[in-house]
Amino acid sequence: MIFIGERINAGFKDIVRAIKERDESIIKKWALKQAESGADYLDVNIGAASNKVDDFLWMVEATQNAVDNPISIDSYKINFVEEALKICKKPALINSTTAHDEKLNSVIPLALKYNASVIGVCMDEKGSPQDVNQRVELAAKIFTSAVEQNLPPQRLFLDPVIMPLKFMQEQGGNILEAIQQFKLLSDPPPHIVVGLSNISSQTQESKLINRIFLTMAVCAGLDAAICDVADEELVNSAITAEIILNKQIYSDSYIKAYRSARL
Amino acid sequence: MIFIGERINAGFKDIVRAIKERDESIIKKWALKQAESGADYLDVNIGAASNKVDDFLWMVEATQNAVDNPISIDSYKINFVEEALKICKKPALINSTTAHDEKLNSVIPLALKYNASVIGVCMDEKGSPQDVNQRVELAAKIFTSAVEQNLPPQRLFLDPVIMPLKFMQEQGGNILEAIQQFKLLSDPPPHIVVGLSNISSQTQESKLINRIFLTMAVCAGLDAAICDVADEELVNSAITAEIILNKQIYSDSYIKAYRSARL
Repeated sequence: MIFIGERINAGFKDIVRAIKERDESIIKKWALKQAESGADYLDVNIGAASNKVDDFLWMVEATQNAVDNPISIDSYKINFVEEALKICKKPALINSTTAHDEKLNSVIPLALKYNASVIGVCMDEKGSPQDVNQRVELAAKIFTSAVEQNLPPQRLFLDPVIMPLKFMQEQGGNILEAIQQFKLLSDPPPHIVVGLSNISSQTQESKLINRIFLTMAVCAGLDAAICDVADEELVNSAITAEIILNKQIYSDSYIKAYRSARL
Repeated sequence: MIFIGERINAGFKDIVRAIKERDESIIKKWALKQAESGADYLDVNIGAASNKVDDFLWMVEATQNAVDNPISIDSYKINFVEEALKICKKPALINSTTAHDEKLNSVIPLALKYNASVIGVCMDEKGSPQDVNQRVELAAKIFTSAVEQNLPPQRLFLDPVIMPLKFMQEQGGNILEAIQQFKLLSDPPPHIVVGLSNISSQTQESKLINRIFLTMAVCAGLDAAICDVADEELVNSAITAEIILNKQIYSDSYIKAYRSARL
């Protein structure tokens, strides 16, 4: 399982404050906490908090000053992505391209140039997918473009686009079915990733819903998630699902073994 | 989800003592606790504690004296099953037949005679299945026999046979895949059930493994489980999985709603 820590995101007020005050200690706190929780990548997202590329680069640098985890560069702005790639010390994850031709033809060349991986979000100019077939068509388009541009499947992460359970309950099963089909695109298959917290948006039982959805998604074939990596029960659920699928070797202390192998 | 309470089972020492001392209070305690936890059926299993049918009937009666939940008659002895069926106040669940012709031709007629449902365990004279295909073949044999004898699919519960993760780790994925295929046997499909606790036998993280396996199995198509219904986290996991699959309608208080609807 590839865990991408979601917390350095200006959707959170403390991160907005960190950016405004150039307070590295807040970024450092979350970088350390997520790294200690076993995050593989740390997602960095400036959202609507600032449209200055310098602010975004400061976030990336503050993160890299704290820990040596690779960065997930979370921006839809191509210049933000490229400037961040220039300063990333380890091969980064670009979050993200969509299935727009223009995006595919600008983001994937950057991934190739900077030895990065790419999240391909199954959306296009028509918006978000509403059923399994649309998701699979968009995934196939992204996959084909990536392969034609010589990006290896192992550096592509397909995202079926999670929608809030509370408002679009019928989409949960569609997403799980789409994940099963994404696995069939190639052998070895591309990675499959979700932005997990969307599923539980505005629900009362958000942690429970997050971990149950993640467990079901791993069952369907998911192998990566942008999520709250500091949520121990969430991580333990995903680890256990992988043990049940025989993707990790069972031992009585498999949870401890998993964590100590990552730190 | 159909929950079958596992606790009135002479694999537990207090139940052995209850049988020996004819102490109804112990049976009553577990009957009430499981009924209050929302059990649909209460499984009654005498195991190796006694080979006297009267002892088994006493267990069934003690359970029915405490609560009015229907009984899951858990015995491989056909005379135990028939004697219990005679005293069951509500349509019972016979646990179980295997895919042996002799069993199928004695258990299913009893189910028809007494308006009971049947668990069909995917084993035969060759023993337990070792892969997906064997499970599906045995399931198809049981299904065909049931339908030919005029048992409606809705009264058949197919059991893919869970094996302990600790000792047969490769079987977890096989069981989940078999469940997916069992769903395709008919429309509407038969029920699919597991004896959940087997998965976590002799593990340190048994509750975690139980609830993650149950979640994955619901994702694959399971709709019934013999399990520890008093384990709230386990039940909440299954309820949440069904909400994600849109089998129950979401509300912010869906867990409370689910429980209050069953009591």
